[in-house]
Amino acid sequence: MGADSVGVVNTQTVRLFDSANPLRLESGAELSPVDVAYETYGTLNADRSNAIFICHALTGDAHAAGWHLGDKHPGWWDTMIGPGKPVDTNRFYVIVPNLLGGCQGTTGPASPRGGDGPAYGLDFPILMMDDLVRVHRALMAYLGVERLYAAMGGSLGGMQVLQWALETPEQMERAIVIAASSRLTAQNIAFSAVARKAIMSDPGFRGGRYAQEGDNPDTGLATARMLAHITYLSEDALSEKFGREPQFSESNPGFGVDFAVESYLDYQGESFVERFDALSYLYLTRVMDYFDPLGSDNATDAIGANPVNWLLISFDTDWRFGDEHTRRILRALERAEQPVTYRMVPSKWGHDSFLLEVPRYLETVEAFLGRPL
Amino acid sequence: MGADSVGVVNTQTVRLFDSANPLRLESGAELSPVDVAYETYGTLNADRSNAIFICHALTGDAHAAGWHLGDKHPGWWDTMIGPGKPVDTNRFYVIVPNLLGGCQGTTGPASPRGGDGPAYGLDFPILMMDDLVRVHRALMAYLGVERLYAAMGGSLGGMQVLQWALETPEQMERAIVIAASSRLTAQNIAFSAVARKAIMSDPGFRGGRYAQEGDNPDTGLATARMLAHITYLSEDALSEKFGREPQFSESNPGFGVDFAVESYLDYQGESFVERFDALSYLYLTRVMDYFDPLGSDNATDAIGANPVNWLLISFDTDWRFGDEHTRRILRALERAEQPVTYRMVPSKWGHDSFLLEVPRYLETVEAFLGRPL
Repeated sequence: MGADSVGVVNTQTVRLFDSANPLRLESGAELSPVDVAYETYGTLNADRSNAIFICHALTGDAHAAGWHLGDKHPGWWDTMIGPGKPVDTNRFYVIVPNLLGGCQGTTGPASPRGGDGPAYGLDFPILMMDDLVRVHRALMAYLGVERLYAAMGGSLGGMQVLQWALETPEQMERAIVIAASSRLTAQNIAFSAVARKAIMSDPGFRGGRYAQEGDNPDTGLATARMLAHITYLSEDALSEKFGREPQFSESNPGFGVDFAVESYLDYQGESFVERFDALSYLYLTRVMDYFDPLGSDNATDAIGANPVNWLLISFDTDWRFGDEHTRRILRALERAEQPVTYRMVPSKWGHDSFLLEVPRYLETVEAFLGRPL
Repeated sequence: MGADSVGVVNTQTVRLFDSANPLRLESGAELSPVDVAYETYGTLNADRSNAIFICHALTGDAHAAGWHLGDKHPGWWDTMIGPGKPVDTNRFYVIVPNLLGGCQGTTGPASPRGGDGPAYGLDFPILMMDDLVRVHRALMAYLGVERLYAAMGGSLGGMQVLQWALETPEQMERAIVIAASSRLTAQNIAFSAVARKAIMSDPGFRGGRYAQEGDNPDTGLATARMLAHITYLSEDALSEKFGREPQFSESNPGFGVDFAVESYLDYQGESFVERFDALSYLYLTRVMDYFDPLGSDNATDAIGANPVNWLLISFDTDWRFGDEHTRRILRALERAEQPVTYRMVPSKWGHDSFLLEVPRYLETVEAFLGRPL
């Protein structure tokens, strides 16, 4: 355990919506109960002004920092969150939930219907970005926070922050949107469509009823992950990590794992299915496909009346949600006369940079959070 | 039928290797019989000096130009080959075979073992680029051609030309290598690895014995094609063609085909399985993975003694085998003091540009073929 870690932490769970108070979704459907798994680090100060809300990406969870007992690795954003780190837990109270539709403790399509039935499967309602944010708001209220010092996230996490800030900007002083998009391209959608096809065409998917029927679409889910993982890294990063190194004897070629990069992808796929649910993958990728919060004329009306201090970060080698995605957000915020800081950070690792120890990136976040308004 | 087409053509088939004269493969294995499907256009002149040999790409076939009776579309390179076209059939004699390991008439893993047994399946020997070229040489000899006016091809086709010219440069005056690579990157290999996984994990694959067992891995093959197809087009081309146009009602979202780009990919996948074999996909993608003809110190010794006139073409938006792949070949040829013409052609369509009507590209090929040595 690192000396600069928040130490041993536990994931909590709270029921935020029930049959008496169901979650009303953007689609008009109602969902209950909704349980939310979350972690917090640091201490909420007396005037409740030091809360930072972390929104995780597609396959993240509530365990962003510190260690669960027995863990081999700390939380997924331990480089960012901890004592003396950019999100300094000596100063800030940090809230990290698992998102709605997820599979790490928060209600999602693999959860029991109505709290005690069989898994929802494909009967789980279609989610939109705003639905994820509604649950975030409920958690924030439950924890006694009315206004956030900052909301922040990368990739799908940044998209949640964008949605949230555009809709109820009075709830946050700062919004940090990292390697995100306001609008997926046809290529972005296409990659997710192929990943979903791999999942849904796995016979073990059984029309989404795999849990009830004792089966699983692990092969399809692993294929989806392998494909997505290629898009998370820059071509140069993959070359630098693996080149064309043969994994096994070149004298016995075939259709197994002949190159190191194949072994790496296989491992990514296999380890992913141990921690993630195929239905969550379907629902959450669709949330991203549909997302287009700047598509309407009045998209920035709310922030016009309640400015938020924005930090937008892209990475120069990110080809999943590259700099042009961030600049599209930037242009809309500038038109709305928002105070916005924009940085394209050089990093060779591609989209995954937002999870990695990239000094200029971490310093940028630290400076932004430390700067008085 | 276009007035500038070679007209109605037929695919021929010839047995080039048999049990008395088996094909000796790079791996040491022997293969027989080897039948080759091919088409020719134009007329071989008296001194047999006007032959152009076309090598096709991963999913191409011998039908490059003109029309088969009943066809809705002409051959796959009808923009390039025909009367008055860059490969002018009034002037040149054009030879186009289906490649070894393919599934359009030439012997491949779906062919009957020994000519009359069950399909080879995964017992088909692993192929290397040189094996494909050995069969090309045999076809050329069969057709009475000792030296080619030019060999040309795009993508995997260009890789065959590169291998051929490096090994027996005395067999060609000109080599045209388009949107090709001398050495796949880790990312290139990774995309193919995921495509192969989709095929091999389809239960219908049945360990490669699907033909005998009356099954098929069409779903996996369609997924593989959808994935590959994303990499054949530039991100801008996909955006321009499809944007984020919804395909069906936005009021009824789900996991089917909600965006036009999804419908397009579905169509690509479904139409592909009607014309292509999953085992050929495995074998031919592996040929590309292993390809590295410039990796040895003596790679260019043969062309040093027998210079070939080279034309190397890349497309600026190609992100599968982009310009850096072509420039790697260029540097090796320049070090070997070869006469080489290099062009990076602007085209918004990405890798697929080599198959499309891109005027500057077609003009470049025409000028190169028309130029006296």
